[in-house]
Amino acid sequence: MDKIKYLDKINSPSDIKNFNDSQLAELAQEIREVLIETVSQNGGHLASNLGAVELTLAIHRSFDSPKDKIVWDVGHQIYTHKLLTGRYEQFHTLRKKDGLSGFSRPDESEHDTFYSGHSSVSISSAYGLSCANSIKGNQHYSVAVIGDGSLTGGLVYEALNNAGRSKSKLIIILNDNEMSISENVGSMARYLAITRSKKRYVTMKDKLERALSMIPFVGKKLADSVFRLKTKIKNLIYKSTMFEDMGIRYMGPIDGHNIEQMCEAIETAKSVKGPVLLHVSTVKGKGYDYAEKSPSVFHGISKFDIDTGEYKNSGVTFGGEFGELMCKMASQDKRICLITAAMSLGTGLEKFSKDYSNRFFDVGIAEEHAVTFASGLSKGGMLPVFAVYSTFLQRCYDQIIHDGALQNQRMVLAIDRAGFVGDDGETHNGLYDVSFLGSIPNVTIYSPSTYDEMKIAFGNAFYRDSDVVAVRYPRGGEYEIPEDFEPSLKTYDLYGEMSDTLIVTYGRIFGPACKAQKQLKDKGISACVLKLNRIRPIDPEAIEIAARSKNIFFFEEGVRSGSVGEKLAATLLQKGYKGSYSLTAVDDCFVKQSSVPQLMKQYGFDADSIAEKVHRGV
Amino acid sequence: MDKIKYLDKINSPSDIKNFNDSQLAELAQEIREVLIETVSQNGGHLASNLGAVELTLAIHRSFDSPKDKIVWDVGHQIYTHKLLTGRYEQFHTLRKKDGLSGFSRPDESEHDTFYSGHSSVSISSAYGLSCANSIKGNQHYSVAVIGDGSLTGGLVYEALNNAGRSKSKLIIILNDNEMSISENVGSMARYLAITRSKKRYVTMKDKLERALSMIPFVGKKLADSVFRLKTKIKNLIYKSTMFEDMGIRYMGPIDGHNIEQMCEAIETAKSVKGPVLLHVSTVKGKGYDYAEKSPSVFHGISKFDIDTGEYKNSGVTFGGEFGELMCKMASQDKRICLITAAMSLGTGLEKFSKDYSNRFFDVGIAEEHAVTFASGLSKGGMLPVFAVYSTFLQRCYDQIIHDGALQNQRMVLAIDRAGFVGDDGETHNGLYDVSFLGSIPNVTIYSPSTYDEMKIAFGNAFYRDSDVVAVRYPRGGEYEIPEDFEPSLKTYDLYGEMSDTLIVTYGRIFGPACKAQKQLKDKGISACVLKLNRIRPIDPEAIEIAARSKNIFFFEEGVRSGSVGEKLAATLLQKGYKGSYSLTAVDDCFVKQSSVPQLMKQYGFDADSIAEKVHRGV
Repeated sequence: MDKIKYLDKINSPSDIKNFNDSQLAELAQEIREVLIETVSQNGGHLASNLGAVELTLAIHRSFDSPKDKIVWDVGHQIYTHKLLTGRYEQFHTLRKKDGLSGFSRPDESEHDTFYSGHSSVSISSAYGLSCANSIKGNQHYSVAVIGDGSLTGGLVYEALNNAGRSKSKLIIILNDNEMSISENVGSMARYLAITRSKKRYVTMKDKLERALSMIPFVGKKLADSVFRLKTKIKNLIYKSTMFEDMGIRYMGPIDGHNIEQMCEAIETAKSVKGPVLLHVSTVKGKGYDYAEKSPSVFHGISKFDIDTGEYKNSGVTFGGEFGELMCKMASQDKRICLITAAMSLGTGLEKFSKDYSNRFFDVGIAEEHAVTFASGLSKGGMLPVFAVYSTFLQRCYDQIIHDGALQNQRMVLAIDRAGFVGDDGETHNGLYDVSFLGSIPNVTIYSPSTYDEMKIAFGNAFYRDSDVVAVRYPRGGEYEIPEDFEPSLKTYDLYGEMSDTLIVTYGRIFGPACKAQKQLKDKGISACVLKLNRIRPIDPEAIEIAARSKNIFFFEEGVRSGSVGEKLAATLLQKGYKGSYSLTAVDDCFVKQSSVPQLMKQYGFDADSIAEKVHRGV
Repeated sequence: MDKIKYLDKINSPSDIKNFNDSQLAELAQEIREVLIETVSQNGGHLASNLGAVELTLAIHRSFDSPKDKIVWDVGHQIYTHKLLTGRYEQFHTLRKKDGLSGFSRPDESEHDTFYSGHSSVSISSAYGLSCANSIKGNQHYSVAVIGDGSLTGGLVYEALNNAGRSKSKLIIILNDNEMSISENVGSMARYLAITRSKKRYVTMKDKLERALSMIPFVGKKLADSVFRLKTKIKNLIYKSTMFEDMGIRYMGPIDGHNIEQMCEAIETAKSVKGPVLLHVSTVKGKGYDYAEKSPSVFHGISKFDIDTGEYKNSGVTFGGEFGELMCKMASQDKRICLITAAMSLGTGLEKFSKDYSNRFFDVGIAEEHAVTFASGLSKGGMLPVFAVYSTFLQRCYDQIIHDGALQNQRMVLAIDRAGFVGDDGETHNGLYDVSFLGSIPNVTIYSPSTYDEMKIAFGNAFYRDSDVVAVRYPRGGEYEIPEDFEPSLKTYDLYGEMSDTLIVTYGRIFGPACKAQKQLKDKGISACVLKLNRIRPIDPEAIEIAARSKNIFFFEEGVRSGSVGEKLAATLLQKGYKGSYSLTAVDDCFVKQSSVPQLMKQYGFDADSIAEKVHRGV
């Protein structure tokens, strides 16, 4: 970028209230340049942010944040909001350790209402805010900004059902960019498509509309009656909408790149009693050709070249290997079905979705339904696999109990991004799955360290173990493991000669643990690494090996509470174990953004930290 | 009942296929008598079952179960289905130990498709089944039978969004009895009310309808075209419905006590390509005056007198005391808000809902939304309390993490029916909350043994502890505790003189543990009871007391995995504890129905079992 004209002078949304049209257009252009440049360096969400530039400008011109509360669903479209709320100077730190988050974070700014990162929550929390405002008797607005993708989550429906026909000052802005993360699926998407294709309400230029628009908005009452009239006219054209059936006043579709039109619509919405939904139509990736053409690819992207649109391929990953494995296994077993909650790209299932389209189900951002639906497939004789990120699996804890484990039926959970995820930060780490899955009867859990182990785990999941089986693996690829390691094909492995000192771990830490074992050996300390492949139940042989040790050091990339390390400790103590025991895990906290290697070091899971801990402990 | 004429001869649904109208009417009458008599003795769900008698008869006449799969949502309306599928002889064992379950249980009958007990899952699992049928190429139907109350859960919307516009042979029967457990709330309920109030489609007696009905249903194609025509006519009257906007063909409302009409409608639905929703209007409690007049009371009821409708009052309970406490605290603090997910009666909030209606929110069967909504209230300066049964809290694990703990805001979870619930069986026990809440950062958990302790816990929850605080208490009332017990007002209590042997427990087991302590004393064995009031975090002083003991016996009414007992063991082992440790908890399994005292004995939590375990162990 050559020179910044506006952004370095904008400290709060009030600074743009008096911008004229051409200034706003220049500002929008400047914002796009900053977005593209920063994301090309730091990675992040690009397409969604490029699509929301004018929408964000309209919102901040129309509302009085932070008195009016803007609640961004997910928060991956919030970059322009960050730039308009005094964070331009830090924007180059986006998604870096100690830098700006890529999502909404109240500890960064009073304009960020909630910590966010998961989908479909904004209407619920904004409605809660508006009820609090009603109780307190103030007149502030609560504004939920939500994408069409998020609209596939059931939480949205629960919120609409609750808020509908209320008198709350709740404005829902539906940022409809015609695509969620994967290509949008489901009836709601089709419904919106039909609505979008209809003649635009706000841009409608017929006589009646012009006549109406000449009536000035001079007061709440008049505006309200005007709106009612408009609604009547609109209804003649569109009939009632689903939202109006739910008791939510509907306005739209509105051009999401026309600031003036949006501001006008928002003013009308503000004058309505009760909740309003403003349907805004935007173009994902707007203003950057490569992103407009491939919005899925530029949804969340790592470093890329601005001129060519080329980005670094992430190489071989667990997710990619998983996708290939599923294609191979599905070719041999016609019962295998794959389910994703709007994450076919992220979970490596693009090829499967094409090659086995009749056995591939993208259910939308609906993790709860994914599991219960899998239960039905399983009862019907299929072998369903739900591929999902660890952090989103949290959404279906009850369904895994009630519609999974309780049913005595086969169901496989393929859990990607287990462990630290790095730059997405505290809302996205996969640190809980071992603990919450571990509390459920009949659930078997594998945590492979290598692609080969992952393959064995899925083989067991399909054909050996019973009921619900989870296979969890990290974001990215294998960590280096020693060449002299020989896998046993058992549910646990040993590395190094048996000794009094035992390093226990699983998953990605196995590599660093082996390195630490060598470092210790060089210092004359003999230790053996016990690696668990199946972490629940732990193999009784592995427990026996631990029970015979004198010093146990357990390293675990997950929360301490309910960890495998705690369970092993409790088991050993009840067996009368008298040795020493040390568990290094993630203590009660939300892990902030950082690169994964930084986090491994920070939490004591790199080779040096492991070696040091053992050295000090023995 | 005088004499059974039909039920003792019905072994499978095929036995009623040839019944004529008067036989069906007599059978329906006989079924109602059996229902009323059995529930008056055993307790159970009455009103919902009385309302679904004719509906169940119509379903079993029209479908070919178990080839066609009937999926009952929740399963609390399934009694007639049990009577028609060969379970009349065992029906007197309903909800008893080793008897028939009050819900759907595949281990009882091949006609029970899934284990069920939680709400809003049926469409998801039935759609999964229909997809499996499509893949396998068979022509069987999947039928979800779901009440209007269950329709408030977001899972239903996720399922409709996924199933809509598909080609699956999915028939959704909406059993609309105009009321969920609490009085139905939300926009969907109002929407259904409007639909119901409209002239009935199937009973419509205008000329056109009569003309249409004279066309015989002689084939799929013709029937289909008839349906299309009917739909067109219907649309002229009702416009499109929300369901049709979602891509689900809508038929209704249909009289849910007219078997012939329902069978006709089902035949039409069967001939439609793709999913159909049949809107059936029933009267909850139908045929028993007291239940018709007070459907909420007779929804789930204990033993009652058939002639007078009088039932045993459950006396003083934790839930009742909680409700009174909330009224008292709310009178002193205007920020306190109460939220329920359609359980105002069950959670003791009837009085609060009337006295503080502007701070009371019944959100429908929408636990996920309840927590996220609470997050909004909290951000708006309120003190939100979500009152919920332990088993249903499982539904909002992610929301407690993402919209609760992560936000650094006060939110209180009032968890009723923590621990064994007794006769509702494996889907309703509250055995997981300690484990799953324990995995979440910033969550404090209290598990009081007495009403007084519960009051202290809520005081701390509102004004002392930070962030998310859970207070959990069992179904029913206090267990007897010794008169010489003096509560300390600390986060833990001791009973008996300090000794080498420590019995550790919390909640309801404290009473039996004290009795066991006395029994042991009589046998010359000295033991001290350490009772935890706050179970997370455990008071460091309590940990010190445990660390100084030689023999620890922990008794815990919850799953072993992730239990407090496991955490204490791991903590002690890491501190170098060398004594013995025994944890009695509920091992990996789903606990079946039984009375609570029976379960306490079975799992080793009664005084005798505790004393024996300690006696053998020291």
